[in-house]
Amino acid sequence: MKAEIIGVGTELLLGQIANTNAQIISERLSELGIDVFYHIAVGDNSGRVAAVVREALSRSDLVITTGGLGPTMDDLTKETVAAVLGLEMVLNQAELTKIEERFAVRGLPMPPNNRKQAMLPAGATVIPNNNGTAPGALIEQGQSIVVVLPGPPRELLPMLEETVLPYLAAKQGGGTIIKSRVLKLCGIGESAAEEEIKDILLEQTNPTLAPLAGNEMTLRITAKAKDNAAAAAMIAEMEEKVRRRLGEYIYGVDEATLESTVGELLRRKGMTLALAESCTGGLIANRITNVPGSSEYFTAGIVSYSNAAKTDLLGVPAATIAAYGAVSRETAAGMAENIRRLCGATVALAVTGIAGPGGATATKPVGLVYIALAAPDLLVTEEHVYSVTRLMFKRRVSQQALAMLWQYLKR
Amino acid sequence: MKAEIIGVGTELLLGQIANTNAQIISERLSELGIDVFYHIAVGDNSGRVAAVVREALSRSDLVITTGGLGPTMDDLTKETVAAVLGLEMVLNQAELTKIEERFAVRGLPMPPNNRKQAMLPAGATVIPNNNGTAPGALIEQGQSIVVVLPGPPRELLPMLEETVLPYLAAKQGGGTIIKSRVLKLCGIGESAAEEEIKDILLEQTNPTLAPLAGNEMTLRITAKAKDNAAAAAMIAEMEEKVRRRLGEYIYGVDEATLESTVGELLRRKGMTLALAESCTGGLIANRITNVPGSSEYFTAGIVSYSNAAKTDLLGVPAATIAAYGAVSRETAAGMAENIRRLCGATVALAVTGIAGPGGATATKPVGLVYIALAAPDLLVTEEHVYSVTRLMFKRRVSQQALAMLWQYLKR
Repeated sequence: MKAEIIGVGTELLLGQIANTNAQIISERLSELGIDVFYHIAVGDNSGRVAAVVREALSRSDLVITTGGLGPTMDDLTKETVAAVLGLEMVLNQAELTKIEERFAVRGLPMPPNNRKQAMLPAGATVIPNNNGTAPGALIEQGQSIVVVLPGPPRELLPMLEETVLPYLAAKQGGGTIIKSRVLKLCGIGESAAEEEIKDILLEQTNPTLAPLAGNEMTLRITAKAKDNAAAAAMIAEMEEKVRRRLGEYIYGVDEATLESTVGELLRRKGMTLALAESCTGGLIANRITNVPGSSEYFTAGIVSYSNAAKTDLLGVPAATIAAYGAVSRETAAGMAENIRRLCGATVALAVTGIAGPGGATATKPVGLVYIALAAPDLLVTEEHVYSVTRLMFKRRVSQQALAMLWQYLKR
Repeated sequence: MKAEIIGVGTELLLGQIANTNAQIISERLSELGIDVFYHIAVGDNSGRVAAVVREALSRSDLVITTGGLGPTMDDLTKETVAAVLGLEMVLNQAELTKIEERFAVRGLPMPPNNRKQAMLPAGATVIPNNNGTAPGALIEQGQSIVVVLPGPPRELLPMLEETVLPYLAAKQGGGTIIKSRVLKLCGIGESAAEEEIKDILLEQTNPTLAPLAGNEMTLRITAKAKDNAAAAAMIAEMEEKVRRRLGEYIYGVDEATLESTVGELLRRKGMTLALAESCTGGLIANRITNVPGSSEYFTAGIVSYSNAAKTDLLGVPAATIAAYGAVSRETAAGMAENIRRLCGATVALAVTGIAGPGGATATKPVGLVYIALAAPDLLVTEEHVYSVTRLMFKRRVSQQALAMLWQYLKR
């Protein structure tokens, strides 16, 4: 199946937003083995939208449009697709009722404009939208499939996952269900992780295994099968294979974050955490406290940005800093031990490093960091160099510090 | 001038990266008054690249390609564009020398493949690339202009700014140019701000004034004029009009952030800052330390998540917490005064509140927060209720706390 994705919206052509919908849809289609040949972005102009839809239908089997399903005059994707396919627009009473109800729960009458959103091309299958007033549409005509989706990612993505991908998986044959599971890794770099599983990455077809780009190392397993149970079994088998190689780095799956995983372990073990941050400047505390209920296990953190704060607030001896430097294994260890004691916490993390762009010395480069973990039974320190931008450095260091804590807690 | 942007690269169609090049080029072209009608992404396939280039030339005056200028067999954009235009590929000796020199400074011989990068369509103007080995090309043929740029943004962007945009601005001649300026506000809500300027929002056509959605309140002024000076004058006049109504809330323009603005004021006044955060959990410290050079004015922060930390680390009397509660005006004030004294800082901010979803009491709802600012000459506290999600609450509180600090510093 050859696919093409058409983004409709003048905001794309003005550069106000990037076409991330095309990216995400492409990523998911490629996991289904569907090749995407073109992305198009076009403005809210019915002549030009009609032309690109017509051309897309002439060269692709599957055409997916995003955007242009709003209630205003400018929103014309559905109407234009219907015109190109020679279909009437008809009112879908069930969808109209749903839209009216969305307004009613907020105590508002539905503005007359929104009635337009319940109009769909004759014969189209509705793609339910549970996060907005614009239903999508799925139209089969001869060998062609046209899928019409709204633009906002928070509406589009669930519609893609819940309706469009399962439909396409079934069309692809060999299965009717597509399921996926994301494994989240920490404490290992991307290339090292891929090296461990390169034979699996090369040979696999169904289920597929794909590394995902982003802030952390993740692997997505996607299975096509005839039903949920079969897909789940296929995923479990692949996951088992991956875990035999990389299990010690997999901290969670799907929606888990490293901070929520660590938080859950602290809570379960009845342990508390304290933090002493220099170069991360509060980012670790911020991540820990993004988790609801973190006050149960997080006692306090000190962001000791100045040397004076390291001695006065944290009690690291000035002599230690003078002898080894503020960015040193010894200072990191002192920070971790002292914050642990000051807060009466079970475990403590400390980081000290050079985020840059300034601050390098003759012997200490930008990107150097020491991370320490203090616990009742051990004190460990790690040295890393991350040659990345300031914000990326803070992010990487926070990730590695939480990875050390996770390694300790899961023992 | 009608423009079209063609991104070449299978990685786009696999969803491995978003087409941010198209976004940025579009944004810059629209500022020049050049309308972009289409974005296309196509894979590394010469037949399909040729077809989209041919079509683009048939409907647009300006065609900009990105990507496909590397040294491998897969990289075929220049060759394909030349073939469509009926041009030979010729070796550019000066570019070959530059490429060889790039390798030489790293002590490496140039791999034979890279010679390909110095081949350019006959008659093309070279677009110098100072950040990579792939020069770009600018080709005029009849009424058509074709610009060929490499894919990596760090190579493409300087080439766009230094060569392509000045060339296009000159081509536009006495035509329209577009300039814009973004005003950034804090300390006022979106609807209150819009209420103050609703007559301007309604009547304006050129320059336009538009509130932008996002994490903070921003207003973009966009002017179309015959030259830069005229556009700047129109923007200045509109800005003056807006500042008469909302000036006290405008902390900066364009790339300024509240944390960088506050940082610059602290540096200029030779003042230092300390932080005591409860419900924001380190977010304020994290934002302050995202700014390079913040160690010059940020001394330290304490994230006092537990009540014990508020008394033990910050020295807020247990009696104050017992009498008024941890989330109270009195506790916030005590936190700010004590962290200021502990760190010997000129000014201090403190926040204590209920981020939710848990933690509400009979008298104190989720979303309640007290923010205190302690300075040599004053101690102020504010009470706010933000009924939003946990992460949004942290963001809003950090913004309001920094807004209080800015209001104090700019006096």
